[in-house]
Amino acid sequence: MRYALVGYTGRMGAEIIPLFESRGHELVMKVDENGEEALGTPRVVLDFSRPSALASTVRICRECSSALVLGTTGLSTSDGESLRGLSSLVPVVYSPNFGVGINILSMILSDYSEILAGWDAEIVETHHDKKVDAPSGTALALMDALGRRCPAHSIRLGNLPGDHSVHLANSDELMTFTHRTINRGVLARGALLAAEFAASADSGYYNFQDVLRSLK
Amino acid sequence: MRYALVGYTGRMGAEIIPLFESRGHELVMKVDENGEEALGTPRVVLDFSRPSALASTVRICRECSSALVLGTTGLSTSDGESLRGLSSLVPVVYSPNFGVGINILSMILSDYSEILAGWDAEIVETHHDKKVDAPSGTALALMDALGRRCPAHSIRLGNLPGDHSVHLANSDELMTFTHRTINRGVLARGALLAAEFAASADSGYYNFQDVLRSLK
Amino acid sequence: MRYALVGYTGRMGAEIIPLFESRGHELVMKVDENGEEALGTPRVVLDFSRPSALASTVRICRECSSALVLGTTGLSTSDGESLRGLSSLVPVVYSPNFGVGINILSMILSDYSEILAGWDAEIVETHHDKKVDAPSGTALALMDALGRRCPAHSIRLGNLPGDHSVHLANSDELMTFTHRTINRGVLARGALLAAEFAASADSGYYNFQDVLRSLK
Amino acid sequence: MRYALVGYTGRMGAEIIPLFESRGHELVMKVDENGEEALGTPRVVLDFSRPSALASTVRICRECSSALVLGTTGLSTSDGESLRGLSSLVPVVYSPNFGVGINILSMILSDYSEILAGWDAEIVETHHDKKVDAPSGTALALMDALGRRCPAHSIRLGNLPGDHSVHLANSDELMTFTHRTINRGVLARGALLAAEFAASADSGYYNFQDVLRSLK
Repeated sequence: MRYALVGYTGRMGAEIIPLFESRGHELVMKVDENGEEALGTPRVVLDFSRPSALASTVRICRECSSALVLGTTGLSTSDGESLRGLSSLVPVVYSPNFGVGINILSMILSDYSEILAGWDAEIVETHHDKKVDAPSGTALALMDALGRRCPAHSIRLGNLPGDHSVHLANSDELMTFTHRTINRGVLARGALLAAEFAASADSGYYNFQDVLRSLK
Repeated sequence: MRYALVGYTGRMGAEIIPLFESRGHELVMKVDENGEEALGTPRVVLDFSRPSALASTVRICRECSSALVLGTTGLSTSDGESLRGLSSLVPVVYSPNFGVGINILSMILSDYSEILAGWDAEIVETHHDKKVDAPSGTALALMDALGRRCPAHSIRLGNLPGDHSVHLANSDELMTFTHRTINRGVLARGALLAAEFAASADSGYYNFQDVLRSLK
Repeated sequence: MRYALVGYTGRMGAEIIPLFESRGHELVMKVDENGEEALGTPRVVLDFSRPSALASTVRICRECSSALVLGTTGLSTSDGESLRGLSSLVPVVYSPNFGVGINILSMILSDYSEILAGWDAEIVETHHDKKVDAPSGTALALMDALGRRCPAHSIRLGNLPGDHSVHLANSDELMTFTHRTINRGVLARGALLAAEFAASADSGYYNFQDVLRSLK
Repeated sequence: MRYALVGYTGRMGAEIIPLFESRGHELVMKVDENGEEALGTPRVVLDFSRPSALASTVRICRECSSALVLGTTGLSTSDGESLRGLSSLVPVVYSPNFGVGINILSMILSDYSEILAGWDAEIVETHHDKKVDAPSGTALALMDALGRRCPAHSIRLGNLPGDHSVHLANSDELMTFTHRTINRGVLARGALLAAEFAASADSGYYNFQDVLRSLK
């Protein structure tokens, strides 16, 4: 698969390029704020940079009929409209979080929210002591998936990339669903799944859970 | 709901009777090897006793048009046929395991087996040191749900009622789904869910996961 | 060992009597608010009742030259003086908590508090949803043992008898010390250790950690 | 502190040099199989290379009156004698494992082995799926610390740097002591503690637990 990478000098770029290369995908276009450097026409454009890059990214997708995998956060309403428009022409995968496991956990909680309705729930999340927001955005997303607010406990110590545990209990049983990030490279793995999905999908607007569901 | 209990003197009986009473269900028939004692017609018959009791249990269900909730293990092929026959007349819920949480965990693993196909899996189960079988039947059932064999580790110490953990990992993430039994009364809770389901279900053959799915 | 039990009709009594019997210890005196019933002279008196019983308990110990194992909470200063006085004559073991494992964990944290001084610490404790105090008294005792205050997270769900986890991290490692109560009978086991210790100890004032240290 | 590093091009070297620099320690001598490059006289020599380097390392320590921190594994009996001889002149810290937390855990198990004698024990260790030895050397060291063999379960999945859990249970309680490696740089941190200890210690032969005990 030939792909373009917007913001290739950032941390995501540093993780995506070797991972995609190990899977035989070819980087044919590099884009940053100074312009683009193209060796060929990309089948998929990946953009994990900033909202300000979106207009140029959408233009490239339109010109090249490339699919888009977008992980930019902080998009405006008009950005959303621009993406919807693009998705009538090519596949667009948008998600604020390309973590594979955490999205699987969210899907499970959402699918089983009614069955788990009678269970008490509490979330514990553990991160490095530099993390300022509490509870984590991921903890809030897990509550959204579960369909209810519940107590969340934020542990901040050491240098942990991030653990999330959802505890569920009735009077006789305790279930705990835990996700642990081992390497921060997990997002590049999600980008890879999304790009491989987008390369062969029909035009349309998808989120990352659609990508995961396609594995079924 | 009026119910009958086969094998009411056993441990399951000791747990079912007060739990059902707390929910307003009335025990109208008690059955053991010496015969039956009836105060009324049961809507649901519960049998958590032995295969040898099944013929009598099925006869009662037929005579009373009662639904059946059956937890007996070690049934023969002809027992199965007998149950299938009964299920054309009344609802029959059969499961070798009425644990609520462990069945939810099995359903999740089964539903997500394709999505989790690329993840390494190992199971750890911890039980009291008197338990002789290893891995536990529940660990094997979790593998069945996941659709593959995987290493299982059996810890035998102290007096734990039973923990099961399914570890799933890719190179960047670890997910652990853990179920802990706190009180052995958990099976009576499952029997309650099954009986309440059976009391209003159409005739047919169901397992316990059908009962849980009806909560959706 | 011949022993007396003050408050033998309470929950502790219900757990102590069969456990002590299984170890061959003989209950020779039963004491409650209505008086005492004696079949012999106790070597050890156990009192897990109320402060109001203490005067009578101390009198019995003095009359019989019996050792005392005392778990009563809420003692006054003059109660303390009375115990100190008694301890010049017989062994007195006093502790507000006879949990074996949790005392071992406290001893470890205390012994290693300087070595662990550079590690971040947080405590998570999980109890049934009827527990009103948070953090638990045990969590506070663990902080005392560690020699510093640290964040404590109180999870209240289901029917858990009680889990306590102390998380310790530096930038490269995480250590977690977890104690899980499986059966609430754990305190009777601690009382047994204390009584067997007291039966052969020199006169003096001991706490439960002295009892555990004697196992070394 | 001025220090020498033997085998500075290896992985340990890559971790030690920036960590020591961040603490203000100055690398004044670099040694590899091609010889040494010296800018000054080291107060401490660190050697995490191979047994074949030891003779040269000991010679440097003798010439410079430098303390030695040695992490080489696979030493011979005559190597041991050479180190004992050196330790009459300068401080020598030798350990096959400079992991801080795992040594603390070993010390705890050793200190409490008698108190924990009546508890069932099992060890679970989880590592990446490339690890070939099972149980891990660290699991065996934990058993040594505990003073008895116990079942060990080796989970091999994903890319985990290494978790070790020691489960201890009696009939009423479960204690679990878990160590998780987050970053493989943990050994450099141990080397730092050892070097800072050695810089001011009396001549003698020490292990890494002596270093940790000096923090008390």
